Amino acid sequence: MAQQRGPLDSLIKALTGLPGLGPRSARRIALHLVMNRGKVMEPLVAALEETARSVKICNACGNIDVCDPCRICADVRRDARFLCVVAGVADLWAVERTGAYKGKYHVLGGLLSALDGVGPDDLRIAALPDRVRNAQAQEVILALSATVDGQATAHYLTDRMASAIPGVKISRLAHGVPVGGELDYLDDGTIATALKSRAAL
Amino acid sequence: MAQQRGPLDSLIKALTGLPGLGPRSARRIALHLVMNRGKVMEPLVAALEETARSVKICNACGNIDVCDPCRICADVRRDARFLCVVAGVADLWAVERTGAYKGKYHVLGGLLSALDGVGPDDLRIAALPDRVRNAQAQEVILALSATVDGQATAHYLTDRMASAIPGVKISRLAHGVPVGGELDYLDDGTIATALKSRAAL
Repeated sequence: MAQQRGPLDSLIKALTGLPGLGPRSARRIALHLVMNRGKVMEPLVAALEETARSVKICNACGNIDVCDPCRICADVRRDARFLCVVAGVADLWAVERTGAYKGKYHVLGGLLSALDGVGPDDLRIAALPDRVRNAQAQEVILALSATVDGQATAHYLTDRMASAIPGVKISRLAHGVPVGGELDYLDDGTIATALKSRAAL
Repeated sequence: MAQQRGPLDSLIKALTGLPGLGPRSARRIALHLVMNRGKVMEPLVAALEETARSVKICNACGNIDVCDPCRICADVRRDARFLCVVAGVADLWAVERTGAYKGKYHVLGGLLSALDGVGPDDLRIAALPDRVRNAQAQEVILALSATVDGQATAHYLTDRMASAIPGVKISRLAHGVPVGGELDYLDDGTIATALKSRAAL
């Protein structure tokens, strides 16, 4: 670049590292921030500082919240007999948004991946059997993505849980046609699975 | 949302306002920031604060820089006979990246838009004739987007400059096939324009 822009270049560089942002979107955002200092940039800095100050990772489940243990772990109204295993906090939020689940969570912090070199010791897996035992959970629900890594992680967890806690029920999310999804746009694998798991009316 | 996440929700809300970021990308970025506090979040906060502290808008041309007048306005080696009019700082950066222009700039701060209610008084237009006169500029290059708003702004500026400073040369960027562009993927208007403006070999 012909021009040396100092702090603005550092800001663009810091933004470029964020998920989904390339150099072009980072430049657009940096300019938007500079041009709207009072209305956009200052609230963002304040929100970042408040988040850095107060948000913690829950030692029990791996969720993030302003308290540790997090409010889901601390909530006695939530049913500890169900433990929902998710890859990340975004997935926990996705399940929470449905309002259909009232049990507890366990956040792995990722998925097993041979390609990316992520093994069981890189994830929050070792603590899982103890959590299930201590909470006397009856069912472990594996809410993992239907991808290669997600399914490999599900298989690994199923084997490990079955040998560590014989008798615990392990389930996974149903596969099928997404609600509102058009058959014509779905891949063959999903349609085949939905056909095999068809429900009686 | 079932869960009250306090500061994290404020952060997601602040991020959602940024150009190109919807709620989903804002959530992803917020999580990435929280999970990588030292390596990502703190450098970003530092860069934002340094930018807020030191970056100014140049009173002469509308560019942003750490000094006012900006380094392009202050640079005596840049040829003041040429004044390149751009809609925003991003376009100024785009022209600078080419390294092909050594004149000065004038940043309008937007484009005229009947739909969005942007009139001449909302842009840095009133100061333009005086800048051209004071710098004794010989050519005003309108480097505006080839969109409806860009072309409307170009027409307006051409009329206004012609009556304010008779004799000043006003030019626009050439239309044609983008370098590296495949004809098959180009719209008819561009191909027709490129055909009309064809260059002898």
